[in-house]
Amino acid sequence: MNLKEYMNIRLEEIDNTLENIFDKSSIELENSFIEMLKYPLNAGGKRLRPILTFLACELFNGDYKKAMMPALALELIHTYSLVHDDLPAMDNDDLRRGKPTAHIKYGEANAILIGDGLLTYAFQLLSKTDVKDSILRKLLFELSYASGINGMVMGQFIDLYYEEKDINFDMLKILHSKKTGAMIRGAVRLGAIASENINENDMENITNYGEAVGLAFQIQDDILDVISDNETLGKTVGKDEKDGKLTYVKQLGLEGAKKEAQKVIEKSIEYLKPYKESEAKNILIELANYIIERKS
Amino acid sequence: MNLKEYMNIRLEEIDNTLENIFDKSSIELENSFIEMLKYPLNAGGKRLRPILTFLACELFNGDYKKAMMPALALELIHTYSLVHDDLPAMDNDDLRRGKPTAHIKYGEANAILIGDGLLTYAFQLLSKTDVKDSILRKLLFELSYASGINGMVMGQFIDLYYEEKDINFDMLKILHSKKTGAMIRGAVRLGAIASENINENDMENITNYGEAVGLAFQIQDDILDVISDNETLGKTVGKDEKDGKLTYVKQLGLEGAKKEAQKVIEKSIEYLKPYKESEAKNILIELANYIIERKS
Repeated sequence: MNLKEYMNIRLEEIDNTLENIFDKSSIELENSFIEMLKYPLNAGGKRLRPILTFLACELFNGDYKKAMMPALALELIHTYSLVHDDLPAMDNDDLRRGKPTAHIKYGEANAILIGDGLLTYAFQLLSKTDVKDSILRKLLFELSYASGINGMVMGQFIDLYYEEKDINFDMLKILHSKKTGAMIRGAVRLGAIASENINENDMENITNYGEAVGLAFQIQDDILDVISDNETLGKTVGKDEKDGKLTYVKQLGLEGAKKEAQKVIEKSIEYLKPYKESEAKNILIELANYIIERKS
Repeated sequence: MNLKEYMNIRLEEIDNTLENIFDKSSIELENSFIEMLKYPLNAGGKRLRPILTFLACELFNGDYKKAMMPALALELIHTYSLVHDDLPAMDNDDLRRGKPTAHIKYGEANAILIGDGLLTYAFQLLSKTDVKDSILRKLLFELSYASGINGMVMGQFIDLYYEEKDINFDMLKILHSKKTGAMIRGAVRLGAIASENINENDMENITNYGEAVGLAFQIQDDILDVISDNETLGKTVGKDEKDGKLTYVKQLGLEGAKKEAQKVIEKSIEYLKPYKESEAKNILIELANYIIERKS
């Protein structure tokens, strides 16, 4: 299997499983809230994080099914963060992937609750992970660390703080490593933990891989904002420049940023060298390359 | 020890522990976010839920220290729910317990993130609970169940839905059992689980106790809205009537509501009958009575 085939198969399984994670209530009104929770979950996301979780699990010879609940939990948390991020008080976005955002569709108060509901339910799903209890404890720490005040939420706070202020390049790197990096790093770590089959050295390697991929993802985002067009990207290009934002392109120049992304991805692949040839390893390499080749 | 002495001792320990749950960051900006998280946590809450968690743990001869992280996690979640509830898009409250609400103090975007941060960190704390791993799995399910779409978040959604519509008494009871009841029920269940020392029958008894106390708490809230004054209550009285809200008092009359609260509390105490005389048992009885005797 190559990356595309792998993603198609896993995406279908993710979508089918997501369809059944919420129990139907005997109270009709409650079911209408469940429908609201499903709306942003089914908005056509790339499912990059769950895919990384599965692949990391398989790299260490784990059954990807054991990583299903952590992977879905990550996706729920990623989704809630978009719902809250789109709110009028935050980025005030009306559209996401061409569809009305949650607060446009259901109102602002419901959108806040949809986010809170998704975030909390992520942990409820996690409690059902089919692993040893001692492994579950590690997953719980990892998921909350990646998504909370040591990771994503702190990244959002830093981003918000610098909205109207100049940021320097060091702080920008910290911002990215938390806002987007932490969840990608967390994705591979959760998968590795769920394999129930890793040592400290493996954890270091897969963490380094995840951090590099997360960084390259961000650099490529900055590049696409300059070289893409609205239609291909699915959002407005040139927004960073217009907003006077510091980016990798602004700091390193377009060619410099491209070179940096290439370098980071090569490094990410280096961390997989110790592992013997396998499907998961090949796809992880392909995925790393895809990150900087993607057009949207 | 009586309830008051017990609460004083435990409250001090809760406050001291809360003071140290957040690691200091080497990045100054990050510490400013940590300070924001502490603000609503230190706003003078009654800490009713953690106290119930400790007492339930002790009723079953558990060491209350084992229930510390679940108790604090509950308090963090209770606190986040107030922060989000106070937002302009929700209840739009400027003051809570006489102090500016989080969004008044730090702005709306930060208040959303403070809530998200507290909620996520609750689960990070939980991962550090000093119990067997198999017990932690149960705690994780319980906490997410009580606070999420099977409990508090769903209750808030129902409350929001009926803001501008007439609610019937059956639906009102469901609303209360989720919005405020689920977390009080969850509080005693978390404590019981953390004791590592209960059977199904015990769980049923303490759950029934918690549900009754939660219900009586709500009835008393409705009563106080009619008979208290602004200063004693610390919030505006007569709000329910003014908003045309259905309440226990409106449904049963003032005397009927008082009788109902008394009946529910007597029932709650019944559930403790199987347990031998102990300090925890006595204080749980005293606490039940306090719920309907309180003036604020």
